[in-house]
Amino acid sequence: MEFPSKLIENAVAELSKLPGIGRKTALRLALHLLKAETETTSSLAEALAKMRFDIRYCNTCFNISDTEQCSICANPLRDHSTVCVVSDIRDVIAIENTGQYQGVYHVLGGVISPIEGIGPSDLHIEPLMNRMQGEESEVKEVILAISPTMEGDTTAFYLTRRLREFPEVHISSIARGIPVGGELEYADEITLGRSIVERQRQAR
Amino acid sequence: MEFPSKLIENAVAELSKLPGIGRKTALRLALHLLKAETETTSSLAEALAKMRFDIRYCNTCFNISDTEQCSICANPLRDHSTVCVVSDIRDVIAIENTGQYQGVYHVLGGVISPIEGIGPSDLHIEPLMNRMQGEESEVKEVILAISPTMEGDTTAFYLTRRLREFPEVHISSIARGIPVGGELEYADEITLGRSIVERQRQAR
Ligand SMILES: [Zn+2]
Ligand SMILES: [Zn+2]
Repeated sequence: MEFPSKLIENAVAELSKLPGIGRKTALRLALHLLKAETETTSSLAEALAKMRFDIRYCNTCFNISDTEQCSICANPLRDHSTVCVVSDIRDVIAIENTGQYQGVYHVLGGVISPIEGIGPSDLHIEPLMNRMQGEESEVKEVILAISPTMEGDTTAFYLTRRLREFPEVHISSIARGIPVGGELEYADEITLGRSIVERQRQAR
Repeated sequence: MEFPSKLIENAVAELSKLPGIGRKTALRLALHLLKAETETTSSLAEALAKMRFDIRYCNTCFNISDTEQCSICANPLRDHSTVCVVSDIRDVIAIENTGQYQGVYHVLGGVISPIEGIGPSDLHIEPLMNRMQGEESEVKEVILAISPTMEGDTTAFYLTRRLREFPEVHISSIARGIPVGGELEYADEITLGRSIVERQRQAR
């Protein structure tokens, strides 16, 4: 595809780098922005740059945050004795939207995947261990809310083994309302909410 | 949907304003940018802002351009006696990609649509008339390459009537290889290319 303007060509090239955006869609988006008020484009460009450059990750749970500690960890009304371990920020957002969970989180930042070269040390597993160690730790239960895919199961298995270090802490996994092989983030809110409430104590 | 960060919330809100981008897709794009190098976001934001603020429209044909005159109008190798009238810049790009057309263009900037309140004076029709008037005009043929939708047909009909002012100029419309009711920009390149080559002289 050739363009009559380098400016639009660059914009289309950059937009096409986004996942799921082909060149035709990118062109449609670019032409939409050209037709709209200049404010539409400047607000979008600013919001993206601000997000990328100013975003922080919670020191405790690795959730995205505008501050050192995320709003969930900083909330004294949340149950800090229950930690829900998820692979991704998207899962935090999905579970929060069910309105069914009152505990706190721990975001691993992915799952163990030998194919993609992601090992346990690439995930925030040590910070989870550190969080549970020490006199002042109040963690009584760890919920493994990891998508039941092959990589997810491997990660859950690895975590279960590591968590044997804390025999007094309950380990549970979200109830299998979610189809096996399904991605957590695509579950509807009711199913996901129920799978948190009816979480199953895991044998260990 | 609630977000743990105002920064990501703003980015998702801005992305969701784009056509065809829902909040779930917007969140996916935002999280993709968060995971990628900061350069990915800064390049995207800069390319969009630069495009929107620096873009110009060709003084002659209203094609997008980085300069006062677009690269097509400025090209002496193009046939300046044949003007292809299209509604949109997308159509210029689509026809250029067929590699079948050697003439120049005139971009109307839309089609007549009473429902959307777009009348002839909202389109670049007077500049087309001015372009054809005067001693130095070399226009010998006008090709109406407007999508055969109801609004497109109305626009073509209106233009045909206005072009009676120039009885020495041939008027043709692109051959109906394109399904009636179909949008020009979705036509495959072969069909679109053929419909330009086999354009039909219009009765007047
Ligand atoms: Zn946190
Ligand atoms: Zn031009």
